Amino acid sequence: MSFKILHRSSKSRARVGKIITEHGVFTTPVFMPPGTKGAVKAIAPDDLQKIEAEIILVNALHLFLRPGSATIKKLGGIHKFMNWNKPILSDSGGFQVWSFNQKAPALGTTVSEEGVWFRSPLDGTKFFLSPEKSIEIQYEIGTDIIMAFDECAPDNSDKEVIRKSMERTHRWARRSLQRHLELYNHSSHKPLFFGIAQGGPFEDLRRESISFMSSLKIDGIALGGETIGYNIPATLNLLDSVVDVLPPDKPLYTMGLGASPRDIIEVIKRGVDMFDCVNPARVARHGELYEGKVTIVNKEIRFESEFRDGLLKIGNSRFAEDDNPIDSECDCYTCQHFSRAYLHYLYLTKEPLYLRLATIHNLRFIMRLVNKLRQAIIEDNI
Amino acid sequence: MSFKILHRSSKSRARVGKIITEHGVFTTPVFMPPGTKGAVKAIAPDDLQKIEAEIILVNALHLFLRPGSATIKKLGGIHKFMNWNKPILSDSGGFQVWSFNQKAPALGTTVSEEGVWFRSPLDGTKFFLSPEKSIEIQYEIGTDIIMAFDECAPDNSDKEVIRKSMERTHRWARRSLQRHLELYNHSSHKPLFFGIAQGGPFEDLRRESISFMSSLKIDGIALGGETIGYNIPATLNLLDSVVDVLPPDKPLYTMGLGASPRDIIEVIKRGVDMFDCVNPARVARHGELYEGKVTIVNKEIRFESEFRDGLLKIGNSRFAEDDNPIDSECDCYTCQHFSRAYLHYLYLTKEPLYLRLATIHNLRFIMRLVNKLRQAIIEDNI
Repeated sequence: MSFKILHRSSKSRARVGKIITEHGVFTTPVFMPPGTKGAVKAIAPDDLQKIEAEIILVNALHLFLRPGSATIKKLGGIHKFMNWNKPILSDSGGFQVWSFNQKAPALGTTVSEEGVWFRSPLDGTKFFLSPEKSIEIQYEIGTDIIMAFDECAPDNSDKEVIRKSMERTHRWARRSLQRHLELYNHSSHKPLFFGIAQGGPFEDLRRESISFMSSLKIDGIALGGETIGYNIPATLNLLDSVVDVLPPDKPLYTMGLGASPRDIIEVIKRGVDMFDCVNPARVARHGELYEGKVTIVNKEIRFESEFRDGLLKIGNSRFAEDDNPIDSECDCYTCQHFSRAYLHYLYLTKEPLYLRLATIHNLRFIMRLVNKLRQAIIEDNI
Repeated sequence: MSFKILHRSSKSRARVGKIITEHGVFTTPVFMPPGTKGAVKAIAPDDLQKIEAEIILVNALHLFLRPGSATIKKLGGIHKFMNWNKPILSDSGGFQVWSFNQKAPALGTTVSEEGVWFRSPLDGTKFFLSPEKSIEIQYEIGTDIIMAFDECAPDNSDKEVIRKSMERTHRWARRSLQRHLELYNHSSHKPLFFGIAQGGPFEDLRRESISFMSSLKIDGIALGGETIGYNIPATLNLLDSVVDVLPPDKPLYTMGLGASPRDIIEVIKRGVDMFDCVNPARVARHGELYEGKVTIVNKEIRFESEFRDGLLKIGNSRFAEDDNPIDSECDCYTCQHFSRAYLHYLYLTKEPLYLRLATIHNLRFIMRLVNKLRQAIIEDNI
């Protein structure tokens, strides 16, 4: 068993656990900073160590297109390539193919039962991606947790379209799993394999999809698709409605979720163990820095901030002479050494240093938040 | 005396010394990474510590315009503002006003005996800068070494124009010094004061200017203007021709020089103690990374590199699968942890992380080079 639950809260479905991988053990709930293209935007592994990241995420399709998964393998695998010796999870590329197509439909993507023909947004070269190919790419890259190849359907599709897409995702999951097991049995590299449940915003489809995935020999289950993370009320409703079909002993991963401290608290209450989101780093680059703290009042957990949604907008002229750190309780390099005034100035002058300092803060903020939530779970306060 | 010479080479005018400032002592010869606007491009003080920078440089005019020297003073001074507790030198803004005017003549700059009227390139606001004002700004910023306010004339001007400009620079140096002494005597802050010799490409004018500056009560002498650093043969000729008028016991600073390892060796042989240059960091950002080593052959110093001018062009496809570090002898964070292949990839994908890793390497490369040159001076090999 790669997943061990250390404590279940008596108040909610929240739990603290640990996941064992080839590159070490990490504790859950966990936030996984995305290093989509093989680098976490604007920060290096020394920063990731300091913010105490335990696992990061890369995208198989991006790395397949550039620098090439064969190149990464030749160079000793993704851990050596990007100098990160802790666990790495790779997404399969299913969502990414869909996202390329949303952004540039003119490139033309053709989905068949066999797989997906698509053109690289880099140079228009045509590529074919299938469940088998995605798993092979992920083995070449050498990640610790690999994901089944899934199909995404837009949330505003007809239910019948979403059902058909979900059913294809199930067939593709079987094929992904089969290729995984073949490679697993003939390789010294032993990644964990996660299934991705789809079903759009429909509770019955999500239940069906989760039940199907749970029937497979998987190490964890993810909720994928457009809804998750983007539409938080829908995500929370879905989580509430699938409680009884979720496998109680498998890690649960909400893909692309983690933009706001309050969202994170809510999904953790509902039993989510793993999540990732580009937003903490992205909003940092655009001048929004987290501020606030978690408090327990009458055994109820709360997130409080001086700023709306916990986001301090550093470009605001009110910070031009503000000698305080971004967040007075934060232990990150940025808060320990620089004032809001300096960050305000770096942001306005577009100094590249701003990107690093802002990213360090927002990622560390989420790490500290999750640490506090783990503690709250252990104390049955969440 | 703020400058102590520890060793003079028996082979050349090269020397090793130390300069004592309010924020500590640094060894010469020294390369000063420019943090023109109050931040060294793409790297933070933690990186600067690791590359063993001993003194950095800021520009008084940039900081006066934004965030404002009064703001910096209010926030505790430049060292606290940018979190750098070692020495900082500020340029006076003389060169910068001239550079603004070269880049955007339409903004209109009017130079009179009193000073310079110019418009901010940020928003067109009109400002007046004089020798007295420049010194006041530098005191507000709180730097350890301040520079006299000078006038720059383009190198292609008539000699008479350059002479008149030089003579004005001399009068402005007197006024700068006077304001410095007034502030010095009434302040607990005790910066060192350097004069700037001008004279364009003309040896006789440079000799005259150096002689004049040497007659003032200054802590160091700089060679300024367009020639220095941009036109290396002319810079070396000028240095050779002024040997007998240079004050032997004052630090000599060539402003804006330090783009190439060979240039650095040549000026150090000619007695230069301090230099700064934006190029090592700038070329790093544009994909040119230093490679090479200093060797002593028959007591002659040489710089050797596999690459032309010691510059490895990381965007070249030959590095796509090159598992070596940029420079096999380099001890920087980048070379210790990442391959040429990874840097090639980060550069091509325009990952912001590239900027930091490349800057760390090129600055550390120059630091190591200067360390080796210091050693070579002590051993009379240079």
